[in-house]
Amino acid sequence: MVELYDDERLDYLLADEGMKIIQSPTAFSFSLDAVLLADFAYVPVRRGKILDLCTGNGVIPLLLTRRTNATITGVEIQERIFQMAERSVRMNELSGQLSMIHGDLKEMQSTLEQSNFDVVTCNPPYFRTASEKERNHNEYLTIARHEVYCTLEDVVKACKLYVRPGGKVAMVHRPGRLIDIISLFRKYKLEPKRLQFIYPKAGRDANMLLIEGIRDGKADLKILPPLYIYNADGTYTEEAEDIIYGRT
Amino acid sequence: MVELYDDERLDYLLADEGMKIIQSPTAFSFSLDAVLLADFAYVPVRRGKILDLCTGNGVIPLLLTRRTNATITGVEIQERIFQMAERSVRMNELSGQLSMIHGDLKEMQSTLEQSNFDVVTCNPPYFRTASEKERNHNEYLTIARHEVYCTLEDVVKACKLYVRPGGKVAMVHRPGRLIDIISLFRKYKLEPKRLQFIYPKAGRDANMLLIEGIRDGKADLKILPPLYIYNADGTYTEEAEDIIYGRT
Repeated sequence: MVELYDDERLDYLLADEGMKIIQSPTAFSFSLDAVLLADFAYVPVRRGKILDLCTGNGVIPLLLTRRTNATITGVEIQERIFQMAERSVRMNELSGQLSMIHGDLKEMQSTLEQSNFDVVTCNPPYFRTASEKERNHNEYLTIARHEVYCTLEDVVKACKLYVRPGGKVAMVHRPGRLIDIISLFRKYKLEPKRLQFIYPKAGRDANMLLIEGIRDGKADLKILPPLYIYNADGTYTEEAEDIIYGRT
Repeated sequence: MVELYDDERLDYLLADEGMKIIQSPTAFSFSLDAVLLADFAYVPVRRGKILDLCTGNGVIPLLLTRRTNATITGVEIQERIFQMAERSVRMNELSGQLSMIHGDLKEMQSTLEQSNFDVVTCNPPYFRTASEKERNHNEYLTIARHEVYCTLEDVVKACKLYVRPGGKVAMVHRPGRLIDIISLFRKYKLEPKRLQFIYPKAGRDANMLLIEGIRDGKADLKILPPLYIYNADGTYTEEAEDIIYGRT
């Protein structure tokens, strides 16, 4: 048994699986973005080391355990949310494979070994830090969604610092930041290799992007087929459903 | 009447229109890329000035006359191909709207006024200059397709030089060069605003990209819905057909 505090609840991680995750509407609930990133990211199957930055309630490490036996480390800056991630790991009896760390990705040099991970994943805060007024009134959500404690550059720099040469960095973000992301990936020698755009439905502009770069890789970018989330009638597309229900 | 030399032939520019264009299998024939760019590019409808760099046989200026009354200048470095463009302009009685210039886009400062065009379009050579061996044996085609006389940076620099502040630059290229294109657009203050990927058919990686930047624009990129060229049965998709047959 695991404790639940305040408005926390237990959700199924994937609709048709036994795995559960602790969520809180006022602190942290995972979104489709994390699910798509966990499906998109390359992972070594048998062994290796994976790092997930901005891990939140640990959703990406938990999802990745379905695809890999590699050890996975999650880093979360907000203590309350880190605690949720830790309890979810225990509850799913995954302490042998997953470790959660409470810390700031900008200051992990004494905790994490550099150039040591085969893969680094990250679902970072999307929004540039706005004025006090424009921010979310809830501090937990503000920190998770806005660049309060880390900018996009801090995130990309940290990815570069911990991934090994030849290792992969996978990130989910908004299309409006594509140019910034690509510029920063190049700046930190993470050569973009795979790029996929997510469209809410046919005929709409993309509202999400998935990108994977290789540290010190050669220039050779592929633009993957687009992924549509909804059909015209508002139901999930087959492709999206396969990912959301964990059938991939 | 207009003269045709060597293996030149007259082709219809769009399947259901009266406009014709001089082509040559050994010198220059336009491709789908040019047709897509002419459809993608923003153009002012009533008045203005448009510049088309690497104009080849003038396909983009000719196509744009269907959408704009602006004057359009085409620049082509290869004299034989420039001559084809000039004759096509005369044949279509468009000399009042279109002017073709034989010249090198790197050295047009005395011919073209700087910061003077509302829109600059370009379908540049796609391939980095390879060794003599790897190049096309036909010199005309080699120059049109490889970065022999101009690199991607030369092209982007020229676009920047001739477009007015707030004016638009539209380009077609290959996805493998996206990172280079975006880096160069940023370097020359052409902020990418619209990006569209072209897929040969569903399930395949993109094989073409269309990008539009605004000189001195603010960062705010939209990823447009993808465009598929072929259906699974090899016929054109309705969307592609509308563009190719000039029904947009």
